[in-house]
Amino acid sequence: MNYVLKNLPVRTEKPRNTGFTMAMDKGLSLRETEDFVESCSDYVDIVKLGWATSFVTKKLKEKIAVYREAGIPVYFGGTLFEAFIVRGQFDDYRKVLDTYGLEYAEVSDGSISLNHEKKCEFISTLAQQVTVLSEVGSKDAAKIIPPYKWIEQMQTELNAGAWKVIGEAREGGNVGLFRDSGEVRQGLVEEILTQVPEERIIWEAPQKSQQVWFIKLLGANVNLGNISPSEVIPLETIRLGLRGDTFDHFLGEIKL
Amino acid sequence: MNYVLKNLPVRTEKPRNTGFTMAMDKGLSLRETEDFVESCSDYVDIVKLGWATSFVTKKLKEKIAVYREAGIPVYFGGTLFEAFIVRGQFDDYRKVLDTYGLEYAEVSDGSISLNHEKKCEFISTLAQQVTVLSEVGSKDAAKIIPPYKWIEQMQTELNAGAWKVIGEAREGGNVGLFRDSGEVRQGLVEEILTQVPEERIIWEAPQKSQQVWFIKLLGANVNLGNISPSEVIPLETIRLGLRGDTFDHFLGEIKL
Amino acid sequence: MNYVLKNLPVRTEKPRNTGFTMAMDKGLSLRETEDFVESCSDYVDIVKLGWATSFVTKKLKEKIAVYREAGIPVYFGGTLFEAFIVRGQFDDYRKVLDTYGLEYAEVSDGSISLNHEKKCEFISTLAQQVTVLSEVGSKDAAKIIPPYKWIEQMQTELNAGAWKVIGEAREGGNVGLFRDSGEVRQGLVEEILTQVPEERIIWEAPQKSQQVWFIKLLGANVNLGNISPSEVIPLETIRLGLRGDTFDHFLGEIKL
Repeated sequence: MNYVLKNLPVRTEKPRNTGFTMAMDKGLSLRETEDFVESCSDYVDIVKLGWATSFVTKKLKEKIAVYREAGIPVYFGGTLFEAFIVRGQFDDYRKVLDTYGLEYAEVSDGSISLNHEKKCEFISTLAQQVTVLSEVGSKDAAKIIPPYKWIEQMQTELNAGAWKVIGEAREGGNVGLFRDSGEVRQGLVEEILTQVPEERIIWEAPQKSQQVWFIKLLGANVNLGNISPSEVIPLETIRLGLRGDTFDHFLGEIKL
Repeated sequence: MNYVLKNLPVRTEKPRNTGFTMAMDKGLSLRETEDFVESCSDYVDIVKLGWATSFVTKKLKEKIAVYREAGIPVYFGGTLFEAFIVRGQFDDYRKVLDTYGLEYAEVSDGSISLNHEKKCEFISTLAQQVTVLSEVGSKDAAKIIPPYKWIEQMQTELNAGAWKVIGEAREGGNVGLFRDSGEVRQGLVEEILTQVPEERIIWEAPQKSQQVWFIKLLGANVNLGNISPSEVIPLETIRLGLRGDTFDHFLGEIKL
Repeated sequence: MNYVLKNLPVRTEKPRNTGFTMAMDKGLSLRETEDFVESCSDYVDIVKLGWATSFVTKKLKEKIAVYREAGIPVYFGGTLFEAFIVRGQFDDYRKVLDTYGLEYAEVSDGSISLNHEKKCEFISTLAQQVTVLSEVGSKDAAKIIPPYKWIEQMQTELNAGAWKVIGEAREGGNVGLFRDSGEVRQGLVEEILTQVPEERIIWEAPQKSQQVWFIKLLGANVNLGNISPSEVIPLETIRLGLRGDTFDHFLGEIKL
């Protein structure tokens, strides 16, 4: 770091299993990607090319290469998986992953209805090819999944071969784990945590107040996702208790 | 595109008359403009230099040249036209258009009171020099224009020589076509469409929910405007049914 | 400027004492900083590296050098000062300022409880080393400071050696000078202005509606702060009456 501040929360280091930040790139140009990597590669553990933006992104191979050279794995958003599945193009999807040399993939059913057994089969099959992140939660605000179902699905998907499970929030942070207003479904999160190991979960938390909530509940090294590139540095300061929002929270830990 | 997905909505191609995206640049630097053009030139049909930002933009000629080389016409926001008119500097305005080699211009009365006959005269005069976009709707949330007036003004302005008419929304998307809350004035839009040909209208729709609403109503190839540079790629995926918001909408068209 | 518009409000020029814009950089990469400076150096008077983002910013010295070469002084956000103070590292803080060659520093107590006499001592001490900006107002929305206290603190801090005092708003613009909703505490601002010279105050005003409010109250050349880099050009147009929001306001001054 640029100077010494005593008694900061201890952050995990790369490669991280906890304290993991997944950033969402929704169409950065090549040069913007280089800029992002230059300033944030220490703080970003994996990048999602949001939903199916990879379909219309120019110089996609070059972009993936920029991330790869910085040691940051890239994966396509789950909506892309769903777009292939709904068209009966699963084999094509698998070939696309190979064409772009991807080592991670997301399996989700946020926009389609997928029998859960079938979803787990996709996870198992893909897990032979790549590291699988699976996502739980609908993008449809009207589809409320009760906590016991979240837990059951998360556990089954991890058993099927998912490396980590992702709690859905979208880019906006107003579905899945969150209410319309962006407020956390607190009871849901706490119930999930009684049954699923924390390090196996990535919480999508695009809004600052959501990041703060999770950091206050689970500490500096909670796994967070859907972080906008321009919010990666701010998030790092929140994890370290160096922004107003968590400044007090970590002071108790300081022995002055 | 980067891979093959079957049965996508068919997008029009450049030069587009429908399915048109007008992006709003409110002060990109030269290098940011280059980045934008590199990633989005296929998806952007015209760029507006928002309101009078061109007045304080550095390297304006170079910026316009970057867009020109990418085949993207540029025009100054209507507020600039109004700033010249209110000062009695119409002739100066016409010279400025020539100085910058612009081939498009906007005529609007969002911030000034302009007799409608006079507005149409400006349209006619400018149409001899450039391609004219004219804008209907006030920037003042308190000035509610009834639907029949919108229609009458749009028709008269097209007759006066406007190439297309723009439905006002501002950068925020909370006036003109929209309520304070950003909600679409649905009845207004539908009534306009009974009288004005869809391909002659550009709907300003800066918010995602507004873009989604128009795409659901009018399909992938609706003309949309005031799109932020960073939202051009996301918009393109919404048009293609490749984001959660319109994923379902286009599925009915897929023959699986 | 790029063309001539008659009868614009007259803007002050650099080095400005009024009409001052303080921008907040919360983690721009080096190239983004270069871009920002290229397009905005005439309009930005000072840059704050927001709260403690400087701790995790890569190439910090190079970034500060880019600003310095453009004639823009840089200072670290007040939260960083507080992070050093709360750890008993004031001397370390002073050394850090020297290490980075900074000529400005902020003293604040937005996240810590600091006896006001002690705060003024910090101001006096630092004022021997650098030019001090001091900030009044809590980051905690629940801590409402009555107007007479704001005034008393501002006056005492200026007497202690602060060059200017800053009215707190955070990046969001929803505390301190503003209500939760972002609405200005109008009575507070007006009362402050009866006692503290306007040119000694920088009003943090990150939201457009807040900037507009201050410009309508105090004119084109009010001192504003916490402006996002991408909003510096828009703000300049608002100051000049060249955006819808203040278009009417300055028209009264035009002699046509």
